[in-house]
Amino acid sequence: MYSEIKQKVFEANLKLPEYGLVTFTWGNVSEIDREKNIIAIKPSGVEYKQLKVDDIVVLDLDGNIVEGKLNPSSDTKTHLELYKAFSDIGGIVHTHSRHATIWAQAGLDIPALGTTHADYFYGNIPCTRPLTPAEIEQDYEKNTGLVIVEEFARRGVDPQAVPSAVISGHAPFCWGKDASDAVHNAVVLEEVAFMALGTRSLNSGIVIQKELSDKHYYRKHGSDAYYGQK
Amino acid sequence: MYSEIKQKVFEANLKLPEYGLVTFTWGNVSEIDREKNIIAIKPSGVEYKQLKVDDIVVLDLDGNIVEGKLNPSSDTKTHLELYKAFSDIGGIVHTHSRHATIWAQAGLDIPALGTTHADYFYGNIPCTRPLTPAEIEQDYEKNTGLVIVEEFARRGVDPQAVPSAVISGHAPFCWGKDASDAVHNAVVLEEVAFMALGTRSLNSGIVIQKELSDKHYYRKHGSDAYYGQK
Amino acid sequence: MYSEIKQKVFEANLKLPEYGLVTFTWGNVSEIDREKNIIAIKPSGVEYKQLKVDDIVVLDLDGNIVEGKLNPSSDTKTHLELYKAFSDIGGIVHTHSRHATIWAQAGLDIPALGTTHADYFYGNIPCTRPLTPAEIEQDYEKNTGLVIVEEFARRGVDPQAVPSAVISGHAPFCWGKDASDAVHNAVVLEEVAFMALGTRSLNSGIVIQKELSDKHYYRKHGSDAYYGQK
Amino acid sequence: MYSEIKQKVFEANLKLPEYGLVTFTWGNVSEIDREKNIIAIKPSGVEYKQLKVDDIVVLDLDGNIVEGKLNPSSDTKTHLELYKAFSDIGGIVHTHSRHATIWAQAGLDIPALGTTHADYFYGNIPCTRPLTPAEIEQDYEKNTGLVIVEEFARRGVDPQAVPSAVISGHAPFCWGKDASDAVHNAVVLEEVAFMALGTRSLNSGIVIQKELSDKHYYRKHGSDAYYGQK
Repeated sequence: MYSEIKQKVFEANLKLPEYGLVTFTWGNVSEIDREKNIIAIKPSGVEYKQLKVDDIVVLDLDGNIVEGKLNPSSDTKTHLELYKAFSDIGGIVHTHSRHATIWAQAGLDIPALGTTHADYFYGNIPCTRPLTPAEIEQDYEKNTGLVIVEEFARRGVDPQAVPSAVISGHAPFCWGKDASDAVHNAVVLEEVAFMALGTRSLNSGIVIQKELSDKHYYRKHGSDAYYGQK
Repeated sequence: MYSEIKQKVFEANLKLPEYGLVTFTWGNVSEIDREKNIIAIKPSGVEYKQLKVDDIVVLDLDGNIVEGKLNPSSDTKTHLELYKAFSDIGGIVHTHSRHATIWAQAGLDIPALGTTHADYFYGNIPCTRPLTPAEIEQDYEKNTGLVIVEEFARRGVDPQAVPSAVISGHAPFCWGKDASDAVHNAVVLEEVAFMALGTRSLNSGIVIQKELSDKHYYRKHGSDAYYGQK
Repeated sequence: MYSEIKQKVFEANLKLPEYGLVTFTWGNVSEIDREKNIIAIKPSGVEYKQLKVDDIVVLDLDGNIVEGKLNPSSDTKTHLELYKAFSDIGGIVHTHSRHATIWAQAGLDIPALGTTHADYFYGNIPCTRPLTPAEIEQDYEKNTGLVIVEEFARRGVDPQAVPSAVISGHAPFCWGKDASDAVHNAVVLEEVAFMALGTRSLNSGIVIQKELSDKHYYRKHGSDAYYGQK
Repeated sequence: MYSEIKQKVFEANLKLPEYGLVTFTWGNVSEIDREKNIIAIKPSGVEYKQLKVDDIVVLDLDGNIVEGKLNPSSDTKTHLELYKAFSDIGGIVHTHSRHATIWAQAGLDIPALGTTHADYFYGNIPCTRPLTPAEIEQDYEKNTGLVIVEEFARRGVDPQAVPSAVISGHAPFCWGKDASDAVHNAVVLEEVAFMALGTRSLNSGIVIQKELSDKHYYRKHGSDAYYGQK
């Protein structure tokens, strides 16, 4: 019954090691079917080399397993909160990709410093506030999702315009139209995180011009976009 | 009619992922035929793995499509301005290669710090001035070409002696005798950008001796060159 | 008689070049059989490409060769001291992996800066004190083991909770349940060393929240762990 | 007549791209036959992929071609000066390997910061003084060799104990018992240059203890060496 979404999530998960975004089992991809109200997600702690399509776990939006014999990713509740709050997203990726994680560990936004960033992210990629001890102690993974949602709401940032966040002291989450698109954004995130780190080592104050950022973002997004083929 | 130049541009484009200079579709190579007054260039937004020779777009120097069914690179007008102003160049490459882009994002010239640089570039690789909001709003890609031309004119730099520039807040453009030579220079640019970044982290003030730079440049260029085979 | 442990140690050694942790012969893996009171270890100075199962050297805990024709790793006495003092470990790895070695050369602990670290290491990864000239002159390799043991004792750190140390001016040692697990930890160590270096370049003072570190460590370790499959 | 040395030099040259030490044609390896008083060296500007054994050029110690149809490396005179002054060396490598070149461009010695360094290099790897304009203008490549020799003499450094130098503003030269050994040292040089750069970013003042450096150097060199197999 869920073979199509499981296949898509399986393939998207395998792209993570292919793009060099994960070590061991440190990542997971999910996708949502908003008509059936289910998500499909990688099982917890399974090596990518051994992952099979039927290992993908299908859950309802309360986190109950609908299909699958394995435990879902331990980060499942973070995914669920993001799907609930960000109603237009269809896929989510979590990795510990090296350079995005460096920004998360530093507790800093990934600043918008160039057009590579602006082509995909409209403004800084937010770093969340630290969780409180109580939020860590109780329902940690759910609260990790909520703190992302809170940060975007507080700043008035549209999650479709900035499809990533870095979690303070932890690592990035990315999202997109579907699982495959979310992986695409995870690759871009790592690339812009790399280049922002190098840029800051040369110039601690520079940011991209607002007009240049707008130009590149809208060259690729919205009704006036003219990048690519129709 | 244009099969030869399309083949050359096709092959030069494929070298970009081979040399690790592009992620996804973030790059394009073109070549000009100055007798026929046409350029051949990569189509916009097409993945390198799926690129076919016949996808290469042929345009006249006003940007009208002469042959090809796809939209040309969104950066086509930048290429056209460079071909018009720099009459001795035959090929152009645009990438977001990581270390050259770091210098672009920092808004800084890539300084001439060693003989690797001097072997290919006679002096600093210029970073352009920021575009004005008006230049960004109207004819952005054309103005990106014009600001490179302006910067070389203002500094009195010969584009054949310094076959690259970094665009403030954006990324590099490189050129050369033909498409293949421009790709060669794009590889060198990334290499010298990498080493300049590391050098600056150790020594913030050093520059290469003028005499050493001259020696290496003229060992490889001009009538007294003695590097390589005749 | 020792074919099983030799096979395991052989395979674990071959993982070092596979994971990019060694150059030439700069690394070694051992495993202990605590019932038979022997260890198996890589021979000294043998290239990984030429290493055969029967090259693995078996020694008793006084360092006498029990089986094998080659000299054991010159670091054997360090391994022996660690096995004697840390009674719950089963495998040891020594490499000069690049980023962990950078922290060793800097004479600094690898600080706990994120959850990737906390998933595997409960607190900072200790850098040992410098050896005294006398300790270097006499029984150097044995003293290298003893200084690790001393550092963990002095700080009250459980070697199972922090399965790595960096040796001041030298490089890391890692350990684990067996040879394969120790190699796994060596990969993680290099990864967290890489990310800590980048994090420090952005933020010289930050450390991970104690509660977040606890949460991640105990999500993966101990009776309340819920990461992975049962 | 020179087929054996040409084969050795051919194979040693091919190791440079294999180890990632060269881009395009930016490197060369030579070996000397001290009985026949000839050297064999890579031809100038020939791509490694197209290099054939018979392209290797054989020259006498005055630089006259004894066998071969191509121009020898443009750096040949540097090699010749090193062979003349350092009578115990048998092979020489020149590359622009990235991290060693960063130290050359910074005009700094590669400092001895750890045992990886000490295993191969007894003390700092010298950076030469800048050449004078006159030395650059006239007999540049010969003077590059002479300035290395001068630096080692001035400091009283034994070229066998420190088989590398970085040329101010340029790149490294390495040497060894033969061509293959020189390439081995070029790999190590790049590795220690990488780690020294990272170490300096964490700790600007640290150097390795003299006693630890001695211990590691003499563990591998001289009559009391005990690393490896007999």
